[in-house]
Amino acid sequence: MPSATPKQLEQRAAFGARVRELRTAAGLSQEELAHRAGLDRSYVGQVERGERNISLDNIHRIAGALGADAGALLERHLA
Amino acid sequence: MPSATPKQLEQRAAFGARVRELRTAAGLSQEELAHRAGLDRSYVGQVERGERNISLDNIHRIAGALGADAGALLERHLA
Repeated sequence: MPSATPKQLEQRAAFGARVRELRTAAGLSQEELAHRAGLDRSYVGQVERGERNISLDNIHRIAGALGADAGALLERHLA
Repeated sequence: MPSATPKQLEQRAAFGARVRELRTAAGLSQEELAHRAGLDRSYVGQVERGERNISLDNIHRIAGALGADAGALLERHLA
């Protein structure tokens, strides 16, 4: 897999920041979010730090666990 | 990798249908979209048919090529 471009790293970081924002607003720990989403806590931490090129399935898992629209997790001004 | 659940297949199909809708509205062929996004035409076809668990990076590539917000590509009522 080729390395991510600076823009991709920025987009991943923006996604992770949005997840963290909604998670903390919901009063959930990373572990609670991971449990609700059926994902590993370490994976959720990596996603929030922008270290993962997350897939559509996992975007929907996290959105569902946050009670958020999946589209609301994506930065709307970096497309 | 475990098989996709029916819900995940539905979410992938919804994503693909949205891509196709915006692509045709823009008057682009799959090949033109693929070229703009830096992706293979066959991959774009698979995405539109819901056959791929597309990654965040490629969601942004397609959104950028369509001049759309990445969030607008995700079904807002299946989260």
